[in-house]
Amino acid sequence: MKTLNVALDDRSYPIHIGQGMLADVSLIGSMLSGRQVCVVTNETIAPLYLEQVMQSLAAFSPDAIILPDGEEFKTLDTVSQIYDGMLAKNYSRSCVLIALGGGVIGDMVGFAAATYQRGVRFIQLPTTLLSQVDSSVGGKTGVNRPSGKNMVGAFYQPQAVLIDVQTLDTLPDRELKAGLAEVIKYGLIINRDFHDWISANIDALLARDRAALIHAIHVSCEEKARVVAADEREGGVRAILNLGHTFGHAIETAMGYGAWLHGEAVAAGMVMAADLSCRMGMLKAADARAIKHLVAAAGLPVVPPGLDAETFLRLMAKDKKSEQGRIKFILLNAIGGAQYNVTAPAALLQETLTAGAGLAEA
Amino acid sequence: MKTLNVALDDRSYPIHIGQGMLADVSLIGSMLSGRQVCVVTNETIAPLYLEQVMQSLAAFSPDAIILPDGEEFKTLDTVSQIYDGMLAKNYSRSCVLIALGGGVIGDMVGFAAATYQRGVRFIQLPTTLLSQVDSSVGGKTGVNRPSGKNMVGAFYQPQAVLIDVQTLDTLPDRELKAGLAEVIKYGLIINRDFHDWISANIDALLARDRAALIHAIHVSCEEKARVVAADEREGGVRAILNLGHTFGHAIETAMGYGAWLHGEAVAAGMVMAADLSCRMGMLKAADARAIKHLVAAAGLPVVPPGLDAETFLRLMAKDKKSEQGRIKFILLNAIGGAQYNVTAPAALLQETLTAGAGLAEA
Repeated sequence: MKTLNVALDDRSYPIHIGQGMLADVSLIGSMLSGRQVCVVTNETIAPLYLEQVMQSLAAFSPDAIILPDGEEFKTLDTVSQIYDGMLAKNYSRSCVLIALGGGVIGDMVGFAAATYQRGVRFIQLPTTLLSQVDSSVGGKTGVNRPSGKNMVGAFYQPQAVLIDVQTLDTLPDRELKAGLAEVIKYGLIINRDFHDWISANIDALLARDRAALIHAIHVSCEEKARVVAADEREGGVRAILNLGHTFGHAIETAMGYGAWLHGEAVAAGMVMAADLSCRMGMLKAADARAIKHLVAAAGLPVVPPGLDAETFLRLMAKDKKSEQGRIKFILLNAIGGAQYNVTAPAALLQETLTAGAGLAEA
Repeated sequence: MKTLNVALDDRSYPIHIGQGMLADVSLIGSMLSGRQVCVVTNETIAPLYLEQVMQSLAAFSPDAIILPDGEEFKTLDTVSQIYDGMLAKNYSRSCVLIALGGGVIGDMVGFAAATYQRGVRFIQLPTTLLSQVDSSVGGKTGVNRPSGKNMVGAFYQPQAVLIDVQTLDTLPDRELKAGLAEVIKYGLIINRDFHDWISANIDALLARDRAALIHAIHVSCEEKARVVAADEREGGVRAILNLGHTFGHAIETAMGYGAWLHGEAVAAGMVMAADLSCRMGMLKAADARAIKHLVAAAGLPVVPPGLDAETFLRLMAKDKKSEQGRIKFILLNAIGGAQYNVTAPAALLQETLTAGAGLAEA
């Protein structure tokens, strides 16, 4: 088992990465003792892992709340089900929520924890690769509004994160690949050695080799923790974690939530960001091609869907990073080096938006 | 004009207290410049003050959102109207919300600010005595759930508070008195001199003498700021601000929101807390009687409604300060000295709950 610490002063917390941990909560037992404990999960994860977790927590007499599964249920109404379940059992401020599931569960349970009686403890048991390498680190919580994703939320840190790679055994292939998009991202923005390791081990990762997965998750969490520790509330450098996301969010919104998985949209978005970086003279063409190659090797899309440039521009102007319509990009100077807050010349951006299959082929 | 600072490190903010300030925003102009600005108010306050505020902010081209008035609208649905109004105009993270109204508006706008895109700026223009001396200091924001008041929320500080006592000209008498309950509270928990000043000036306050009101608001905010600065997230001493609230919340809930005003319920609750303090040998009988006398002089209820003890106990066990059903009281050692986290012997509590008009008459 590997453990790393997310250093955020009095909001610091450990991430434990290993296998078989859902059946052994000794790591979090001291955080639960004497408290009201509730495991929140969804209808997909419940039949797979809820019984195991409830049994391993039996000493704490936990409650369970099972929510519907899917991004379309990431709403205030669903979070209200958590609030009301807690209120029905008179949960006090000293209770602990446990998020068992992927990013949607983690974001909603984190938001419920941030706001129930103005803040209670929570622990993450992420069960998808995406949530293990992304949303379990950094304290972003929240829900969607009909007109925008993650538009309501809070920065709120968990007490601990337990990552059990055995949960990846049941993850559909498509979601595994979508999670790898974020793993690849860490190499691109901050760690060229990790990028090279991923390139050399992409087949092992796709084959769910546990040692490879644990290493990939560990380095990903470490890199994210480093960035988040430097800028918890996204005033500056934390923005680099959004490489590919400005394009990606536009793709997700245009296609309707769920048509493209988040990681798939980010994958195509990273290829677009590499293409734009290249056109702006920031990134070598060979590096842009290498990025496209790795994304393809991970079984991820390297070409965006057929959206016209105008739709792209309109949707990107709504991005949270945009300031009064001015789009801010995260671009690459090199593999392993990102730059944030970049505005792109309209003509070059137009080229990237209309390049289609010719992206990053210069 | 008087100004005081709420000292909370990087979340510190000024409170400006004076008259005629809604017509002059020069104090907050620097916080608004170049930003998207939205004034949020309700249907009662809008006809009285919205035009004046919009005109004084004209240089910043503000938007306005008018919500329904009343505690029954302090819900996630109403807050969603704020979110969606902001999203419809593409508000970015750098926007500023301005809360124009009483405590319900302040709590909801503060919660919207805490959670819109994970946190944007907000400024309070409180228009009721209660919100001027209570909710505008301390950063508690939130909404109600059907099964509990203020059960969902966040600790989130405004950028500034502007208290214009002219807005009290239009405040109904009953609400003015309800606000005085919290003013009286500060004397009881922390400042005997202030208690004596209030006792000597209660008629001037009821007659809305502006100098008396400015003094009362200033000392109240100062005392609250001092307590909040010592304990922002209510881990300890901040609890004393809830003198009378454990009983009061039970009264409000039992009677249905709105039947008793918050301040009225707190007033009766403070007399009950004094009575219990006295029965427990903590407070002199003469002091308990003086408290009852001042509450009555302010035109506030000194006797709770005819609730049976069982209902009181059941509702108090739901209080946020209660731990797994164990009720924690804030009681008085003296006028000007409070003690928190006190558990009361069941027999003495029973006497207080059934004393009716005989409260604090020992």
